[in-house]
Amino acid sequence: VSDNDTTLAQELVNPLHNADIADLFELVDSDERAPLAAALGDLVSADVLAEMNEHVREDLMDALDASQIADLTEQLDTDDAVAIIEDLEKGEQQAVLAELDAEDRAAIESALTYDEETAGRIMQREFVAVPEHMMVGDLIDYLRKNDDLTTEFWEIYVVDPAFRPIGTCQLSWILRTPRDIAIADVMKREQSLIPVNMDQEEVALRFQKYNLISAAVINDDGRLIGMITVDDILHIVEDEASEDVLLLSGAGDGDINEPIRNSYIARVRWLIANLATALVASFVIAIFGAAIEQMVALAVLMPIVASIGGNAGTQTMAVSVRALAMNELTRSNTRRIIGREFRIALLNGATIAVLVGLGTGLVFANPMLGGVIAVAMLINIVIAGFAGIFVPVMLDRLDQDPALASSVFVTMITDTMGFLAFLGLAVGSGMVSL
Amino acid sequence: VSDNDTTLAQELVNPLHNADIADLFELVDSDERAPLAAALGDLVSADVLAEMNEHVREDLMDALDASQIADLTEQLDTDDAVAIIEDLEKGEQQAVLAELDAEDRAAIESALTYDEETAGRIMQREFVAVPEHMMVGDLIDYLRKNDDLTTEFWEIYVVDPAFRPIGTCQLSWILRTPRDIAIADVMKREQSLIPVNMDQEEVALRFQKYNLISAAVINDDGRLIGMITVDDILHIVEDEASEDVLLLSGAGDGDINEPIRNSYIARVRWLIANLATALVASFVIAIFGAAIEQMVALAVLMPIVASIGGNAGTQTMAVSVRALAMNELTRSNTRRIIGREFRIALLNGATIAVLVGLGTGLVFANPMLGGVIAVAMLINIVIAGFAGIFVPVMLDRLDQDPALASSVFVTMITDTMGFLAFLGLAVGSGMVSL
Repeated sequence: VSDNDTTLAQELVNPLHNADIADLFELVDSDERAPLAAALGDLVSADVLAEMNEHVREDLMDALDASQIADLTEQLDTDDAVAIIEDLEKGEQQAVLAELDAEDRAAIESALTYDEETAGRIMQREFVAVPEHMMVGDLIDYLRKNDDLTTEFWEIYVVDPAFRPIGTCQLSWILRTPRDIAIADVMKREQSLIPVNMDQEEVALRFQKYNLISAAVINDDGRLIGMITVDDILHIVEDEASEDVLLLSGAGDGDINEPIRNSYIARVRWLIANLATALVASFVIAIFGAAIEQMVALAVLMPIVASIGGNAGTQTMAVSVRALAMNELTRSNTRRIIGREFRIALLNGATIAVLVGLGTGLVFANPMLGGVIAVAMLINIVIAGFAGIFVPVMLDRLDQDPALASSVFVTMITDTMGFLAFLGLAVGSGMVSL
Repeated sequence: VSDNDTTLAQELVNPLHNADIADLFELVDSDERAPLAAALGDLVSADVLAEMNEHVREDLMDALDASQIADLTEQLDTDDAVAIIEDLEKGEQQAVLAELDAEDRAAIESALTYDEETAGRIMQREFVAVPEHMMVGDLIDYLRKNDDLTTEFWEIYVVDPAFRPIGTCQLSWILRTPRDIAIADVMKREQSLIPVNMDQEEVALRFQKYNLISAAVINDDGRLIGMITVDDILHIVEDEASEDVLLLSGAGDGDINEPIRNSYIARVRWLIANLATALVASFVIAIFGAAIEQMVALAVLMPIVASIGGNAGTQTMAVSVRALAMNELTRSNTRRIIGREFRIALLNGATIAVLVGLGTGLVFANPMLGGVIAVAMLINIVIAGFAGIFVPVMLDRLDQDPALASSVFVTMITDTMGFLAFLGLAVGSGMVSL
């Protein structure tokens, strides 16, 4: 496409949806992105930029000056404009803001005063709010006459004189109601109001739980200041859930478009932490060096105890992390869930202990060794069950993300306890001596 | 709450949203659920059941007979009714269907003919479709007069005489348009039509990519037969992303409300698979038994090589699995992503190799041992990088879920190759002999 045949490129891309054009940029190599943007010209609209992966967008934005960026963001709703501007460096942010017209600048500056990943950042300031005594007919006339209202809304908010939301009205209800009925009689008074400082993950849970399409955002005084729509929430749900997969593995941002330097730094940090925890396991083995010299079969079997224990711990941990993320695991049922995991661990532990014990006893013609590994396996799987639930719950109570680092701690516990139980029992049973 | 004080219980629960009442059932022990339902009586409406976790709902449904279940499902939209009925056993399904009135029965039976987790199962049959020559005013009159239309819709579909969708119209556009304009002039012709057999994960990706609020579902002839709304998609996105976390760890369904028996079976299967793969690693160690007897430090250091390699492999795997799930990793950029992961692996490998090599050389006062573990570490991290991307991509090309089983395979590769590289180099360097 990029053989300098600009017209052909534009013809091919023209029928595509903005999101598809954005995808095209993600698929090509990073050094082809600027030439592609040049070839497509005006087809790379503000909406295409808004759809783009942030790392890919940064590649393109570097080539633009502040006034070009300002022109682009002025065409977007506040939430999309903020998403683009918040990624810029401080100096460039100021330059772009200076280029914006006063109204847009005020809206974006006020959005930037809220913390990242809160409702204040993801809300848009374009919404429709009306007083409760308005008639359905008057509302329709108002919507028809005011050209500067947003066209993208799914519900309207009904507010009191102090601009505090008192009800929500789906557009379908308005369309199905005669002109002479008051809005107050159509609206639903039961609402899910979102405080402007609420964490976006919490906002997403509200949308899921109450099946919301849009929600009113209020400030500390309870005044309506913005609206969040479900299409933005869809991306947040996807991102937060992906974050759990990636944090659990210590892969950082985990975006395939992230610069290699960032990925390296994010990942190597966890590998080094893992190195530190692996040392603990090595230290345990070192204590039993003499025992291993007497019976090398212990060294052969060690990884089995550690590996299966680690897997069992990871299973429980994944379940706990997701349950915490979805607010299903709370203080009131932690005890019950621990009991549940303990019973599953006993069942799993008993099954694996029998298999490994019999297998080892037969292969090494040593029933005592089979017994030792069976008991060690059972102990380690039960410990893994506790660690898999205890570590994420503790991190959560300490206001840390339970997905972060859980994996490294749980594996450290299962490795160390596995080696300790197995080698300790081997010595304790008199098979080998220290 | 459940001290037999029914009135108090009802008073406390009455102001709660349906979703909150459903949550209440999830929080209490499973043997308290039936008494709670009895105490709450009519407050446990069909909508509360629809909001409930499926395992919790099954607990309650067991106590109901077919006609009671039929009464409840008749109050729901087809998609929610199908979600309840599809979980019943075959015989009970038939009994419930027989109790439904003819129209509902036909709708639900036809939904059940589509495969699980496809658009046909999650769509609702209640939607608004109008011909393109209709005027906005006539449309509003039509909506006001027809009481049996659904009240929950966000867009209307414009269809040709053969009932094939030709455009979509947001309700906000209709409200902002004068009565004498034809719908054809307001609607958007660019649409995302969903084939009825499309996998729900694919449907969710469409919604995310094109920021959809609702989408028309068409049959093989292109006729409009249903509608999917974004609130259902939100649950699917959450479920599919959770599924990846849980499948990666081999934790099965991973729902904390799942019966223990099911959880045990799902998890122990993967532990046994893990046992089989751990045997491969043990076999490698067994080959080098003589070497370990000569230098027990090898046994002490082995877990470090395996553990960090495993972690590096898991990082790359998590990134690949998420990229595959979001359609970001395709045939056209696989080569580029492999190159990217290779470079990150080299950086990570070199960093860890230097740290581990120096540390080992100093602690054991054995520079040769330090060199051996450094090279083994580098090799294992690079192999981990390839395995972390190769295994999920292969599973995906074979039409398997890339999250499933990737973890067990990748760990097997990093364990085995780690031990092989480390012990093999120790022998090859002449430090120890076989």
